Amino acid sequence: MISKKKVLVTGFSPFLDFKVNPSGEIARKLDGFKGDTYEVFGVELPVLHKEARKILEQKFSEINPDLVVGLGLAANATGIRIERVALNRYYRGEEAEERIGEVVAYETSLPYERIREALWNKGIPAYYSFNAGTYLCNEVFYTIASLCSRKGIRGGFIHIPFTHRQVIAMKKFSYPSMQEGLMIEAIKTIIEVSLV
Amino acid sequence: MISKKKVLVTGFSPFLDFKVNPSGEIARKLDGFKGDTYEVFGVELPVLHKEARKILEQKFSEINPDLVVGLGLAANATGIRIERVALNRYYRGEEAEERIGEVVAYETSLPYERIREALWNKGIPAYYSFNAGTYLCNEVFYTIASLCSRKGIRGGFIHIPFTHRQVIAMKKFSYPSMQEGLMIEAIKTIIEVSLV
Amino acid sequence: MISKKKVLVTGFSPFLDFKVNPSGEIARKLDGFKGDTYEVFGVELPVLHKEARKILEQKFSEINPDLVVGLGLAANATGIRIERVALNRYYRGEEAEERIGEVVAYETSLPYERIREALWNKGIPAYYSFNAGTYLCNEVFYTIASLCSRKGIRGGFIHIPFTHRQVIAMKKFSYPSMQEGLMIEAIKTIIEVSLV
Amino acid sequence: MISKKKVLVTGFSPFLDFKVNPSGEIARKLDGFKGDTYEVFGVELPVLHKEARKILEQKFSEINPDLVVGLGLAANATGIRIERVALNRYYRGEEAEERIGEVVAYETSLPYERIREALWNKGIPAYYSFNAGTYLCNEVFYTIASLCSRKGIRGGFIHIPFTHRQVIAMKKFSYPSMQEGLMIEAIKTIIEVSLV
Repeated sequence: MISKKKVLVTGFSPFLDFKVNPSGEIARKLDGFKGDTYEVFGVELPVLHKEARKILEQKFSEINPDLVVGLGLAANATGIRIERVALNRYYRGEEAEERIGEVVAYETSLPYERIREALWNKGIPAYYSFNAGTYLCNEVFYTIASLCSRKGIRGGFIHIPFTHRQVIAMKKFSYPSMQEGLMIEAIKTIIEVSLV
Repeated sequence: MISKKKVLVTGFSPFLDFKVNPSGEIARKLDGFKGDTYEVFGVELPVLHKEARKILEQKFSEINPDLVVGLGLAANATGIRIERVALNRYYRGEEAEERIGEVVAYETSLPYERIREALWNKGIPAYYSFNAGTYLCNEVFYTIASLCSRKGIRGGFIHIPFTHRQVIAMKKFSYPSMQEGLMIEAIKTIIEVSLV
Repeated sequence: MISKKKVLVTGFSPFLDFKVNPSGEIARKLDGFKGDTYEVFGVELPVLHKEARKILEQKFSEINPDLVVGLGLAANATGIRIERVALNRYYRGEEAEERIGEVVAYETSLPYERIREALWNKGIPAYYSFNAGTYLCNEVFYTIASLCSRKGIRGGFIHIPFTHRQVIAMKKFSYPSMQEGLMIEAIKTIIEVSLV
Repeated sequence: MISKKKVLVTGFSPFLDFKVNPSGEIARKLDGFKGDTYEVFGVELPVLHKEARKILEQKFSEINPDLVVGLGLAANATGIRIERVALNRYYRGEEAEERIGEVVAYETSLPYERIREALWNKGIPAYYSFNAGTYLCNEVFYTIASLCSRKGIRGGFIHIPFTHRQVIAMKKFSYPSMQEGLMIEAIKTIIEVSLV
């Protein structure tokens, strides 16, 4: 019997004015999900940078995953945004000069070309980004890239928009949104493509 | 036997760099569709202002509809954009001072509050707009509003985004998009609510 | 001796998160200014709709102006935005169905083509807008248009961006901005062109 | 007699639909300018990536500068945009996987904090950016950073908007813009602060 691959999927809890965070909700919904060849360990990280990194490192060491996919909300994303570059920057935006590691930047080790192609084939808008911001999403991405690089496994970060239901609940129609079911299908596709 | 209500749905053909236009495609796909209480006459208007208005007026007089719903593409719409106000302006943007009618502006006669509520209940992002632009969409909206006002029936205009498949085909991920099936469901819902 | 023309210039006080409002500041700075052929009565209106309209109507009747230029902040304006259409809508955004007058919309009675030309000649970016929003700016614009129409004088509304110094003070660099001196020159130019 | 420091300022020629490029114009206008302690060597690079890098490297070796400031147009910049990170990417956007150097990314070696402060003190909007795009601006920035790093001098890249006169000439008022004089003052300030 071949054991299933272990996939760590992280998301974030709600923050600031955003009462909902699709990234944390999807991480929780996928927790325990078993595909043919893999099972998901979904973790919702708090939007508190020291805490978030500590929990991420603990879960990484505890679960001993074969793949890590970090998820975060980008309120202006128009689809599945595949992040390509993580910068060596500590949480709080442009002003923080503190560093979190050695190299200036990591590149994702997810197979981004095949991921984008697979999502397009399913009718899901997906595109690259070379800038994951200067906040916690970028910091978690850098941490994932650093942990995965040392362990020699694949890891990366994906920004997602709000769900249709969420923008309706918030009455914030300046934000693009997607159907939740389609987003969950997208994350499963990303996992499957990355495990091949 | 009660005869079905006749609903004129208009869209536009592709224009400029846009090789596809979801509004015209949906108008064509809905052409001939029969709901329980209505049937749709779908018409794709050319993006040529004199021609567009002439065809619209001909079809209006020929079909003798009970309801008119104009559709147009708004590449930056994040959902179903219910237009509230049509300005008395002739096609070509800000420079054209030519007028197309008497009053400065018409308001939509679609039941916009109930439409928005019904779409929200189905999980479809929908919002109001008080500015339908200064191009052909606005001109067709003004013409619909004027024709419907004189006939005493409901009529209005709805802006829609690209479909997911269309932005993928164009590789234009700066545009928000929606699933085509959801858009078609939205237009049917708008028709049903407007006929009550 | 020919008496000078009286020009009523209104702006707004700060509101919400905006600690400064260039429209109110310019109205106050221009108050008492005397050009060759005109003098300015600058009034800062509170961002309280009933109050704002009441003060506007009082000042209009008290000053008995020959021209009215309303100013308002548009945080995303990239220059001098000449508003062309005021909608019959009462303050609080899209939800408010209450009306403030008779006609659906007024058009500006400022000589917008000559204004834009004169500003361009001075190197000042200026452009038309056909949507003054659904808040107090639009309501004041509609009120100005209505008062001026009945009196047979020119009146209109201009949206302006923040000043350079203001975005620096707020550290909000997502907003376009202009030099304050250039904005004041723009408003004087608008007055001069409108009095010819 | 102490010889003046030599400052290489690069800009780009017009490209695509943009008939003007403020970065090339400013580089040409500053060419030969002598400050108290420095003189400028202004170079307009063609928007042809192999050519641009070749000319940049030639001029760098020929002039033997003490400081390099690359300028580029960012049509949506709202002020002076100080680029902080150059990515290892070869010209043509997201699709090109070709690399131009060794490290994943360089950080600017311009004294960005003091530059921003000095510009703010002069009333000039200035802000950081951590993403110089994936086109020629980024490639030239990476090349500047690499050349300067090896030589042990300061170098970096600044994005600027169109000038007021340029958006008027193009009638493109969706773009923010600045007065040209203010931009030239900004570049001189950047040079002076970077030479201290």
